[in-house]
Amino acid sequence: MLAARLVGNIWATRKINSLNGLKFMLAEVINNQEEKQRLIVADTIGAGIGDRVIICTGSSAKLIFEERAMPVDAAVIGIIDEDCHF
Amino acid sequence: MLAARLVGNIWATRKINSLNGLKFMLAEVINNQEEKQRLIVADTIGAGIGDRVIICTGSSAKLIFEERAMPVDAAVIGIIDEDCHF
Amino acid sequence: MLAARLVGNIWATRKINSLNGLKFMLAEVINNQEEKQRLIVADTIGAGIGDRVIICTGSSAKLIFEERAMPVDAAVIGIIDEDCHF
Amino acid sequence: MLAARLVGNIWATRKINSLNGLKFMLAEVINNQEEKQRLIVADTIGAGIGDRVIICTGSSAKLIFEERAMPVDAAVIGIIDEDCHF
Amino acid sequence: MLAARLVGNIWATRKINSLNGLKFMLAEVINNQEEKQRLIVADTIGAGIGDRVIICTGSSAKLIFEERAMPVDAAVIGIIDEDCHF
Repeated sequence: MLAARLVGNIWATRKINSLNGLKFMLAEVINNQEEKQRLIVADTIGAGIGDRVIICTGSSAKLIFEERAMPVDAAVIGIIDEDCHF
Repeated sequence: MLAARLVGNIWATRKINSLNGLKFMLAEVINNQEEKQRLIVADTIGAGIGDRVIICTGSSAKLIFEERAMPVDAAVIGIIDEDCHF
Repeated sequence: MLAARLVGNIWATRKINSLNGLKFMLAEVINNQEEKQRLIVADTIGAGIGDRVIICTGSSAKLIFEERAMPVDAAVIGIIDEDCHF
Repeated sequence: MLAARLVGNIWATRKINSLNGLKFMLAEVINNQEEKQRLIVADTIGAGIGDRVIICTGSSAKLIFEERAMPVDAAVIGIIDEDCHF
Repeated sequence: MLAARLVGNIWATRKINSLNGLKFMLAEVINNQEEKQRLIVADTIGAGIGDRVIICTGSSAKLIFEERAMPVDAAVIGIIDEDCHF
């Protein structure tokens, strides 16, 4: 998984039907490199902008949904505790 | 998922049978790096050249199709709203 | 998917049984970077050296086979038309 | 798989329900590059900080669990023997 | 798939139960870059140190096993013929 910080919302009115109502956010990978990798992630646990989160990528990401046949490849699976330093 | 801009069409008359009729487009990943990563994506929601889109990659991409056994690893799952800035 | 050019054949007499008879080729990813990424791909549609092809990677690549339990992670899914410029 | 060294713990009180009780650790990939890639991994075999481990990534990582529908994309599958030099 | 050269053995006495008896090797990806990417691979076809091999990565790698629920993401699927130049 990746450690990332949520930095914005992504709005896409027109999308694949099965994704209606899904919340997309922009995440910036936390590392010690100059160029921060950015990716779009799905969130179902109420994470907000500024939160540090754990991102699951790849085909396992869709396992956050009960209905699993969702075309999603990155999802928030946890919010990192504020007092967790790394 | 990746944020990308559609920059062209890809035509491949000779292809795997199950892909007949599928629309392939060339997408350029949106980031702040000099070298833009390019990939070929499938589109089923009518996205066009110039659109900013959300791309799902990996084996989840084929979940945009009803018939799921398609050898496709990247697909447009949404068109980013014009007034969404990031 | 990736746009790539086929640049050679890969011969492996000793291999996993299920792969007997399968044609492996060396592909060079088409991009505007100095260092061209190379990968080995399976081909079932008669692509040849010099052809520009569409490569599906990851676990979806094996969907080009009727018998799907093949340990293959990259496959030619289409030959890009000669008059397609990008 | 990747060879990595475990360098810390990751605490996330708020997370996807199915992940309750799961131990997350921070791992640093072992290579000869300046910038060490870091990722968050799940551990079920009692690995500790400082251990060199084998990490399985992608959708196969969840196969360390009996209940397989876990949104996890990286897991410790072995602890490298101390006298194994590479 | 990747072309790689096997450069060592990886020993991990303590590991996930289902992996007992499995042979892990260290592979170095063959490319024309300064920094050689290294990964750990499973081998079931008797490849040895020094061999050039074809590596299947991702969730398809576990298809080299009859029992497929193995947490493995990279496997030797073929040994490249000595007289194959690329």
